[in-house]
Amino acid sequence: MDATFLMNSLWVMLGAILVIFMLGGFIMLEAGSTRMKNAGHIAGKTIFTFGLASLVFWAVGFGFIFGDNANFLVGLSNFFYSGAELEGMSLSSPVFFVFQLAFAGIAITIALGGFAERAKLSVYLIFTLLFSAIVYPVVAHWIWGGGWLAEHGKQDFAGSTVVHLTGAMAALAATILLKPRIGKFNKDGSANNIYGHNQVYTALGVLILWVGWFGFNAGSTLSVEDGFFGFVALNTNLAAGAGAVAALIISWMVMGKSDVPTMLNGALAGLVAITASCAFVDTWASVVIGLVAGILVFYSVRFFEKRKIDDPIYALSVHGAAGIWGTLSTGFFATPELATVGKPGLFYGGGFEQLGVQFMGVAVSGIYAFAVSFIILAVAKKLMGGLRVTEEEEIMGLDLSEHGSYGYPEVFMAEENKRLSS
Amino acid sequence: MDATFLMNSLWVMLGAILVIFMLGGFIMLEAGSTRMKNAGHIAGKTIFTFGLASLVFWAVGFGFIFGDNANFLVGLSNFFYSGAELEGMSLSSPVFFVFQLAFAGIAITIALGGFAERAKLSVYLIFTLLFSAIVYPVVAHWIWGGGWLAEHGKQDFAGSTVVHLTGAMAALAATILLKPRIGKFNKDGSANNIYGHNQVYTALGVLILWVGWFGFNAGSTLSVEDGFFGFVALNTNLAAGAGAVAALIISWMVMGKSDVPTMLNGALAGLVAITASCAFVDTWASVVIGLVAGILVFYSVRFFEKRKIDDPIYALSVHGAAGIWGTLSTGFFATPELATVGKPGLFYGGGFEQLGVQFMGVAVSGIYAFAVSFIILAVAKKLMGGLRVTEEEEIMGLDLSEHGSYGYPEVFMAEENKRLSS
Amino acid sequence: MDATFLMNSLWVMLGAILVIFMLGGFIMLEAGSTRMKNAGHIAGKTIFTFGLASLVFWAVGFGFIFGDNANFLVGLSNFFYSGAELEGMSLSSPVFFVFQLAFAGIAITIALGGFAERAKLSVYLIFTLLFSAIVYPVVAHWIWGGGWLAEHGKQDFAGSTVVHLTGAMAALAATILLKPRIGKFNKDGSANNIYGHNQVYTALGVLILWVGWFGFNAGSTLSVEDGFFGFVALNTNLAAGAGAVAALIISWMVMGKSDVPTMLNGALAGLVAITASCAFVDTWASVVIGLVAGILVFYSVRFFEKRKIDDPIYALSVHGAAGIWGTLSTGFFATPELATVGKPGLFYGGGFEQLGVQFMGVAVSGIYAFAVSFIILAVAKKLMGGLRVTEEEEIMGLDLSEHGSYGYPEVFMAEENKRLSS
Repeated sequence: MDATFLMNSLWVMLGAILVIFMLGGFIMLEAGSTRMKNAGHIAGKTIFTFGLASLVFWAVGFGFIFGDNANFLVGLSNFFYSGAELEGMSLSSPVFFVFQLAFAGIAITIALGGFAERAKLSVYLIFTLLFSAIVYPVVAHWIWGGGWLAEHGKQDFAGSTVVHLTGAMAALAATILLKPRIGKFNKDGSANNIYGHNQVYTALGVLILWVGWFGFNAGSTLSVEDGFFGFVALNTNLAAGAGAVAALIISWMVMGKSDVPTMLNGALAGLVAITASCAFVDTWASVVIGLVAGILVFYSVRFFEKRKIDDPIYALSVHGAAGIWGTLSTGFFATPELATVGKPGLFYGGGFEQLGVQFMGVAVSGIYAFAVSFIILAVAKKLMGGLRVTEEEEIMGLDLSEHGSYGYPEVFMAEENKRLSS
Repeated sequence: MDATFLMNSLWVMLGAILVIFMLGGFIMLEAGSTRMKNAGHIAGKTIFTFGLASLVFWAVGFGFIFGDNANFLVGLSNFFYSGAELEGMSLSSPVFFVFQLAFAGIAITIALGGFAERAKLSVYLIFTLLFSAIVYPVVAHWIWGGGWLAEHGKQDFAGSTVVHLTGAMAALAATILLKPRIGKFNKDGSANNIYGHNQVYTALGVLILWVGWFGFNAGSTLSVEDGFFGFVALNTNLAAGAGAVAALIISWMVMGKSDVPTMLNGALAGLVAITASCAFVDTWASVVIGLVAGILVFYSVRFFEKRKIDDPIYALSVHGAAGIWGTLSTGFFATPELATVGKPGLFYGGGFEQLGVQFMGVAVSGIYAFAVSFIILAVAKKLMGGLRVTEEEEIMGLDLSEHGSYGYPEVFMAEENKRLSS
Repeated sequence: MDATFLMNSLWVMLGAILVIFMLGGFIMLEAGSTRMKNAGHIAGKTIFTFGLASLVFWAVGFGFIFGDNANFLVGLSNFFYSGAELEGMSLSSPVFFVFQLAFAGIAITIALGGFAERAKLSVYLIFTLLFSAIVYPVVAHWIWGGGWLAEHGKQDFAGSTVVHLTGAMAALAATILLKPRIGKFNKDGSANNIYGHNQVYTALGVLILWVGWFGFNAGSTLSVEDGFFGFVALNTNLAAGAGAVAALIISWMVMGKSDVPTMLNGALAGLVAITASCAFVDTWASVVIGLVAGILVFYSVRFFEKRKIDDPIYALSVHGAAGIWGTLSTGFFATPELATVGKPGLFYGGGFEQLGVQFMGVAVSGIYAFAVSFIILAVAKKLMGGLRVTEEEEIMGLDLSEHGSYGYPEVFMAEENKRLSS
């Protein structure tokens, strides 16, 4: 077995491990961005939905995306994947499988952001099952599995569309059907800030995501060839830094204080945006893409809030708005040298052609993800007597209502604990 | 130096780093599963016991496990390891050393789970010293260092027995000698639930452990050959996912609510169980092994609680019960193609032979680890005037009694802090 | 492209990722070591200062350190680095760039430790900009970029001087100009202990740093040659373990209780100290270097406190005192076989020559970093009407004063939150 095959396998294995570590980032980001009474639930559900998504991906997801005998929607082989080496791969097939499984796990995790602080536990289970089986794999097949968008030269290096936009559109469907959390909007239409309970968690979460993104983006080279992954990592880091700085400054200028969650969202928006373009653009363009993403996320959060759409963990803005911007950005900035998929962007004399393809990819993928997610949840709402816990349970918190114990027992059960330990 | 040697070194170095990172998982898992008043102590002791175990492993542990001139119990060379390349290795010897050191660090960390919330700090020091010198190295020598169990074809790919069961049996010895925490059991024999104080910590801890386990299991290939580590990683992830899902569902069915700590224990039990078998079984078998582990851990926790054995961090169930199941599982599921050590399992026509070897390995290793740990602690109890802090200190918390400061000063010293900052 | 080039790139990419992950360690270490009212600020600023430092390093830092046409202070090419392959490199240039960028990020993070709990947000921004442009790059150029200290054979394998001492001297300048926090010192000159608010955070932070240090030190081989990175990792781990154990014991002996933060500082001091020497000394010497560092940090903290220098996150002792000791240690312990840079140490018959070079390096680098940082901050103090928030803001906490929201809203806004959720 030649050294390149083994080095590719090693590199992508590291990538897969980093992407799975991103779930730790989401645990901290989501728990930190929500309230104490839901913290155990929020943190715990990330683990078991990833567990469930792993099993679904093994059973059908991988086969749908990359299988042979594909129809318009999906491929049809390699279900219940055995770990066998597949043909035509330049790295270990099980490594490639685990890497792809990790991406599917991130997509569902983003989607579930829209359910936060009010959906029933059973809804999490059912949506994880169906999203991982029939929403994510279709978009992934179209763009990465050799489907029709791939044939059109759609550029999405590591998944601004496939992972982030798909997840965000599912989150949008969920948050529309679930309706806003109690107390988020007043009768006059104005919004209250329901503060997350721990900014240290949020910051650690963002840092873990930043680190994991080197696996997400640079790992998507699927190869060590030319050491090109280093260039991808460099662009990734620049966009993240630019996003954080831009969001800090815009928040300071507009609000008079630099808001910590906004700045953290800026870093994430930079990362989401550069995900599509990291392999196709120059370093200065990465800085620009990140700066725009950092400003965009600030205004996007305001946009959704004004429309009375409650987005507790900012999934719509961070993964949706920045995901769209990132996907379109290659249509502007992809250089002739780097655009190994599709065509160069507008600013490099490529005209509007690639921009058009990118726009089409965003539109079709976004509509598909939104529509199917909406149907799944609308049907579930009917069959399950609602998606949402009762008003009483929501006020009590999902830790208690869905799991029967507090995430922070000593905070909520101070009296009982004192009795036990004395 | 050939490329394979260097790639093996690189891969196992990554593995070692991931296994050492698992200590971060234990810090969060253990701190989250126990009370606020002991949190600084629990978190801090993980660092210094790993530090001490590192020094002991360097001085004698490595030599006992892998040294030449071995007697029945241990090898006898390479003490105070210089970093020199050893003969017959297909990877850098210092890399192999650090990888093995990390495993020894995990074993003592598991063992100390049984001491939680009541043992004196000095007991931690002494037990770390002796466990790392004469308990763990003997079992590791028998199975991985070319000892008699290795000669019998004992299958334990990454340490369900060597690391997890050994640690758990030491924890059992400790928890028996230490007796239950104040308030755990009522006079009528019924048990109280002493809740851990932070489920976000616990969930992050489990995710870090999950990530680290790719180093633990897939790193144990000690080689990049054929990219086989990818297959091991795949099996590892499937078992973890299955364990989490199974524990969630069994908890929901039996208790009416899906308990978060139980679900998290399920993921860990899946990981512990697949540790022995990850390189020897098919992917579907990994799912089965994980599912069984997730159910097993739920009933095992109840089993120990009924017998009035107080196991604060579930070491006995997660690492003990699932460690035994994992070791035995290869006797059922090892395939003819993959069983490069020992024989195929019962379900593949291998008869009861391998199952017998596995059972013997579990029994002998478990008894050795329990007996020697028990003797060490029983002697220490005599010589040190007890293993346990006073009742007053236990109620006050070990942060204050053993270290002289609170882990959460602003919670416990609200008054004094306000004075200082005004 | 040959396999060694690709393996080097892969290894150093992993190193870079680990070093960037260290920022997560600093988030937890710093947040845990300070008070709740400043926690969101402390955690968040680590993200955006790294973002800003990344952009500065891309624009000018890298060119100053490693550029061609160097004058006495800096090099002068490769500004706004394009990602192009540079001449004479045995690994991917963008990978090398990201690795170096990460080091610059750690240096500014250490420096900002001296600003904790009282500096204005705008001061963070300005100092990050200038330190990253004209302080760190000069020292790094002198020692790693082929400057005059490199020509003298200065040994600093991974940056005890370049990163840790430079950061610590900037922190010293800051803490002198900012003056102590309110409540730190009494009128009679005695010191109060302003406790950090969360030892679990601190312990997790230290563990993350420990893990990241394998990238920092072993990654600094910049090569997989001979698998030598394993030896560097081994020395790193031994020194960290020895530092933790030594600090635990000295604290216990002197204070009667083993202090958790002291023990954690011991581990870090061991890591800082071995950073210079990890590639040049025997394993036993690593243990000695770590032991001395662990004891040194305990007395150093007392030393600064007695001189009424307020060092909230112990940057001066952990990175400064241990950084000096580590740099000098190679002058004692560097062996003839391993001293590929400079000369063997005093204990190996090298006489005082190397020790003299090490001392000169420490003195010149330390003075430069202190003096320039002091001037920057003194000028800023004039121009900005002070470096420090008002007394009222400091008491209120920087989360609210600098960012307009609490890091822990439910702790500080218990009343308002209850209203919202009911």
